[in-house]
Amino acid sequence: MQSRRTFLAAGAASTLAGSASNASAAKAKLDLGADRHVYFTGDGIPLKPREWAAVLQQVTEENEIALDSYSVGGPIDELEARFADKLGKEAAIFFGTGTLANQIAVRHITAPDTKVIVPRESHYYADSVNCGPVLSNLELIPMGKGRATFTLDEVKEEVEWNAGLRGNKPVGSIMIESPVRRKDGEVFDFTEMKKICAYAREQGVRTHLDGARMFLAAAYSGVSVRQYADQFDTLYVSLHKYFNGGCGAVVAGPRKYIEPMVDTRRMFGGALPKAWMYASVVLHYMDGFEDRYRSAVGNTEKLWEKLDTHPRFRVERIPNGSNIVALHVKADTKQLGANLLDAGVTISTGGLASGDGWTRLLLRVNETANRRSPDELAGLFTKGLGA
Amino acid sequence: MQSRRTFLAAGAASTLAGSASNASAAKAKLDLGADRHVYFTGDGIPLKPREWAAVLQQVTEENEIALDSYSVGGPIDELEARFADKLGKEAAIFFGTGTLANQIAVRHITAPDTKVIVPRESHYYADSVNCGPVLSNLELIPMGKGRATFTLDEVKEEVEWNAGLRGNKPVGSIMIESPVRRKDGEVFDFTEMKKICAYAREQGVRTHLDGARMFLAAAYSGVSVRQYADQFDTLYVSLHKYFNGGCGAVVAGPRKYIEPMVDTRRMFGGALPKAWMYASVVLHYMDGFEDRYRSAVGNTEKLWEKLDTHPRFRVERIPNGSNIVALHVKADTKQLGANLLDAGVTISTGGLASGDGWTRLLLRVNETANRRSPDELAGLFTKGLGA
Amino acid sequence: MQSRRTFLAAGAASTLAGSASNASAAKAKLDLGADRHVYFTGDGIPLKPREWAAVLQQVTEENEIALDSYSVGGPIDELEARFADKLGKEAAIFFGTGTLANQIAVRHITAPDTKVIVPRESHYYADSVNCGPVLSNLELIPMGKGRATFTLDEVKEEVEWNAGLRGNKPVGSIMIESPVRRKDGEVFDFTEMKKICAYAREQGVRTHLDGARMFLAAAYSGVSVRQYADQFDTLYVSLHKYFNGGCGAVVAGPRKYIEPMVDTRRMFGGALPKAWMYASVVLHYMDGFEDRYRSAVGNTEKLWEKLDTHPRFRVERIPNGSNIVALHVKADTKQLGANLLDAGVTISTGGLASGDGWTRLLLRVNETANRRSPDELAGLFTKGLGA
Amino acid sequence: MQSRRTFLAAGAASTLAGSASNASAAKAKLDLGADRHVYFTGDGIPLKPREWAAVLQQVTEENEIALDSYSVGGPIDELEARFADKLGKEAAIFFGTGTLANQIAVRHITAPDTKVIVPRESHYYADSVNCGPVLSNLELIPMGKGRATFTLDEVKEEVEWNAGLRGNKPVGSIMIESPVRRKDGEVFDFTEMKKICAYAREQGVRTHLDGARMFLAAAYSGVSVRQYADQFDTLYVSLHKYFNGGCGAVVAGPRKYIEPMVDTRRMFGGALPKAWMYASVVLHYMDGFEDRYRSAVGNTEKLWEKLDTHPRFRVERIPNGSNIVALHVKADTKQLGANLLDAGVTISTGGLASGDGWTRLLLRVNETANRRSPDELAGLFTKGLGA
Repeated sequence: MQSRRTFLAAGAASTLAGSASNASAAKAKLDLGADRHVYFTGDGIPLKPREWAAVLQQVTEENEIALDSYSVGGPIDELEARFADKLGKEAAIFFGTGTLANQIAVRHITAPDTKVIVPRESHYYADSVNCGPVLSNLELIPMGKGRATFTLDEVKEEVEWNAGLRGNKPVGSIMIESPVRRKDGEVFDFTEMKKICAYAREQGVRTHLDGARMFLAAAYSGVSVRQYADQFDTLYVSLHKYFNGGCGAVVAGPRKYIEPMVDTRRMFGGALPKAWMYASVVLHYMDGFEDRYRSAVGNTEKLWEKLDTHPRFRVERIPNGSNIVALHVKADTKQLGANLLDAGVTISTGGLASGDGWTRLLLRVNETANRRSPDELAGLFTKGLGA
Repeated sequence: MQSRRTFLAAGAASTLAGSASNASAAKAKLDLGADRHVYFTGDGIPLKPREWAAVLQQVTEENEIALDSYSVGGPIDELEARFADKLGKEAAIFFGTGTLANQIAVRHITAPDTKVIVPRESHYYADSVNCGPVLSNLELIPMGKGRATFTLDEVKEEVEWNAGLRGNKPVGSIMIESPVRRKDGEVFDFTEMKKICAYAREQGVRTHLDGARMFLAAAYSGVSVRQYADQFDTLYVSLHKYFNGGCGAVVAGPRKYIEPMVDTRRMFGGALPKAWMYASVVLHYMDGFEDRYRSAVGNTEKLWEKLDTHPRFRVERIPNGSNIVALHVKADTKQLGANLLDAGVTISTGGLASGDGWTRLLLRVNETANRRSPDELAGLFTKGLGA
Repeated sequence: MQSRRTFLAAGAASTLAGSASNASAAKAKLDLGADRHVYFTGDGIPLKPREWAAVLQQVTEENEIALDSYSVGGPIDELEARFADKLGKEAAIFFGTGTLANQIAVRHITAPDTKVIVPRESHYYADSVNCGPVLSNLELIPMGKGRATFTLDEVKEEVEWNAGLRGNKPVGSIMIESPVRRKDGEVFDFTEMKKICAYAREQGVRTHLDGARMFLAAAYSGVSVRQYADQFDTLYVSLHKYFNGGCGAVVAGPRKYIEPMVDTRRMFGGALPKAWMYASVVLHYMDGFEDRYRSAVGNTEKLWEKLDTHPRFRVERIPNGSNIVALHVKADTKQLGANLLDAGVTISTGGLASGDGWTRLLLRVNETANRRSPDELAGLFTKGLGA
Repeated sequence: MQSRRTFLAAGAASTLAGSASNASAAKAKLDLGADRHVYFTGDGIPLKPREWAAVLQQVTEENEIALDSYSVGGPIDELEARFADKLGKEAAIFFGTGTLANQIAVRHITAPDTKVIVPRESHYYADSVNCGPVLSNLELIPMGKGRATFTLDEVKEEVEWNAGLRGNKPVGSIMIESPVRRKDGEVFDFTEMKKICAYAREQGVRTHLDGARMFLAAAYSGVSVRQYADQFDTLYVSLHKYFNGGCGAVVAGPRKYIEPMVDTRRMFGGALPKAWMYASVVLHYMDGFEDRYRSAVGNTEKLWEKLDTHPRFRVERIPNGSNIVALHVKADTKQLGANLLDAGVTISTGGLASGDGWTRLLLRVNETANRRSPDELAGLFTKGLGA
């Protein structure tokens, strides 16, 4: 994938800069660059089949893309190399899903006859159909019930207790998720994370990060993607959320862990015969993503400020949150949603009454927030309240 | 995906009929229908990324395709319904890979604490990284060493021996593969297959067919896809070989086995976030496939006859074979390959010396064989021999 | 084992009653009935090889004992029948060890694809080399960190949380240990135990009790062995601690769970070729045990009272404890131990300084406490303090 | 257990020499040394409970036997040391059953992610309730269907085939059983055994011998126990068959394999709280066993010769057999059995008609064959035929 021209997302970016997209002018049927719809749902651009196919076609036309063979070769190689580089690891490997990425990573870093500390509120523990114990015979120790963060003290207590039991499996690895999906995008406390990872290194305990949305979190926490990655032996990043790949996940880490994962991926039935299409779209959107997303965050921060001054809006920040904010609205939110949709803005219709006629809605920030200015968006929200 | 217009493959089909493809005339950049290249390699049309993307775009333009959510909904539903119908089963489920399809099917039909008879020469036993024992704790009994078929007598002996051992796990399921990839496409003897499956039903033993290439085999064995399917509780068909899906496999069977596979697919990390693209392409090529393939087989049968009369070619049929034939050539096969490639025909360059200056090449029949007449192809082969 | 005459333990019992043992008069070499040594260590009579062999020989002489075959038949049948009867269950099964008894019981009551709630401080979770996850692929949820009891609320929260997760394994069984070895014999709160077991029955969740020392606990808690047993589907009782079997454990429960354990016992390599010797000795000591032990408890309760009045002794009761008390001594406890040993009383020499010149010793009550009166024992302790 | 005096078995031995046993004279109640009953059933002396208890008591009286603690210490240490020495291995470990011994040995020598070649006709594969796959997740390759021996060529083919499959688990260990219980004591061909073990060493494949009855086989095959042991990494010998331990098995091998088995034994619930009784009886019978058994074999060989000359007896040797011979009898074998029993000789009553009025009975040789001379036994068999 050499000599690639940015185009669709660049279109989005150019909207940012206020100029019209030339690239999009060339496309009669489908002009994603001209799309001004803003979504406060989802983590990425919600591409419809026709749109995704158009992106894929354009990418294949503008690049010489080779076929991969069962997820090896072609643009998969470039994708793996770029993520390894960006995350400061020796190697990286592509998977079709995050569920597979996490479970194979944890399986590979965990030494035989050792236990794994996992966050009880993690996707791996709570939302992966018990894959760790069932498919990899891993014994998991859930930690941090109801919380996004657990502490070094808790980890130490558990490591030492297990080490003190005769014949017992010691703790062999620790998995952390950040930001935490089940906690509305709250991030794991970075100071505690660093302490836990340092302790683990001392003890020969391996560490894995489920950093599915870490590129989003980085723009909020002020901790860079690379700083997160440096703490852990291995980590996983999603490719189908904000990189719009359709499918995909990547795990980065030392070569000794990553290379044997190729056969394990095959054993799990995860060696997709052809995955060049996902990789191609990801490589496209990956270019410049961090700049675009920082811009989207800046835009929405201004938007929240504006909305918070309005008597019928109140913005509640998730403590240690990332790309999710709770917007309290004193209005008929169904009507608000309908009015906004008419104006080209999508918000989640689900909300909880928070008393006194107020409703609490969760809004998510993705790069479509670059498609309109904070002022315009604030105006549409206010107008959407109706009479 | 209603009101879908056939186009690209229809182009291929119309080439068959000798008429020009109107549909392809409309496509300036990439006209797959006009492609006259014939491949004697692979089981399907070897679409390059640009071609596959073009197919996908056209399919999405000509159909209203909905998004699936983690391999549920959208065109996945239609695909599953059509395969269930075609195979005469209550339900069907999509998987990204055949390795996953087989292993989840075998896992689900096998009752707790029972063993599985599997063909030693099968993809499941020999080429799936030991997934059955490692991930599903299945105890496999390999059978039919070196052969495509094993017999009812062998099955009975094993079933009875295991049943006679105190406390021993009885045989709970039997898996058969046909045609057999490791045996150059040889099919499992159908009479023996029927006897084994009838015996299994009597004994309460469940059966699964790895019928990855059964749509190819059906055109050769005279046994219809439905006749094969009727013998078994569950069966798997590949979607990425001759249906050109890129990825994909489908398992059909009774609802009680298929429905719980949805969660298991998720547990294995196989619930692809978006799979509508694969399903869309498969649905496209599936229309009329059996007719087109029957025509390709007819064409190549004529071709083999012609070649066999030539003193420097000899056609060897794989006993009980399907879409693979061995062509013995008394010539420099590298040169033959190069000459054919120049003329728009691809053959495998790998061959084994078979004595006396002859080389044995394996040729595979797929639907690109419809792109030229037997006479034309025979002429190209002969001419390709050189002086 | 019909028409068995009580003898050795009867000797102990008759000592209780103050009369000489006639049975023991007949034994020149080894007269266990005349043994007046009192042990405040261990849960039973610490028989030396020569003593145990003498008991076995006498039992075999006075009874017609048949051989068992791999732990089936002979006195094993009688033992299993008597425990089933005493515990109010349909059936019971013998095991060589408690570790095997617990793990096979939990394995059998736990439905496929369900999780098990276990006490974190239990022998099963903390002291059984991870047998549950490693050998039976069970996923354990440790509960009640640092405590002997966990609550219905905690159980409910966990059951509901797991049930609410899509595709997740629900809680299928709950194991309780009482008294708790790791908590100095503290018993699980009986009110909470009843609530948890009632809730489990409602939910179709199965329950198992590790009641290794429940015959000891019953004499302290006022809850009968049968009352404990009635709460649970299955329960395990040790045979080698206070029943002096050398080896042995029994699990009682419904026939549907117990009968299949015979083959599982064999699979685990636990079908001892001959176990009649253990069963014979247990059957011997089992007769009248509850009376003798109640007497030993009565004796020692008087002893603690007496000692507590002495300025250099202080008796600390373990809250909700059973047969272990902490005796604080203001003296050189090594000297005390040596003096007592000379006088025919064994105490544990290990103790922890508890400040101000006091040392805390753990004393255990077993049926050897019947061998001397409380007054005599109190006198020996006082005298043992030295000058 | 120093300064042990041989007694009971010595009594048996002295009977051999034709002199009365003084030791037995001292025992009024039970004089095993005076027992002249000969058993052609079983591999050892079939001690009844009263007899076994008497042996145990005498052993405990004549030796200072210490208690073991959960199968560690006491006479277990001596037993393990003596077997390690006799088998030429660094270490040995006691187990309660052979089923446990074999499964833990195979579990420990088999490297992670490797397969195990096992004899299809072995106790481990066919009679151990599938323990290997179920409890240790081992993938077994059964070999030598219907035969006692399999060949190096078969092993090599399997090793190479597995090594050639991408991602496949290679063969990591090979288990052999000899003599083979399911083949009437037939031994594994020693030449083939040596070749297989040499090949395994070259390939880094580990080997284990189920030599449960190898002390019996050695007397027949002319291959010493030590020669068998030298071929293998680890091996198991039964303690409860011909060593009359009641229970017990020993595994010998390198320290690196044996030592970790202590914790595994505990995990499997196989750490018997007290096992000194078994070890004590084994140590007793082990002294001089090989001499006594060689004598029993000599005696019975003479007996077979004599019987074979009689027109109504025919001796059939099991090819490559050990201590089992088939005696064909032209007579009412029930009557023969009853007559022999009256005369103090036990034979198996089960027999198969072998045509023409003949019945085939299996006779087993154990050390009770020393209790009478071949002439006397031949006379009893002949007389037992009746009129």
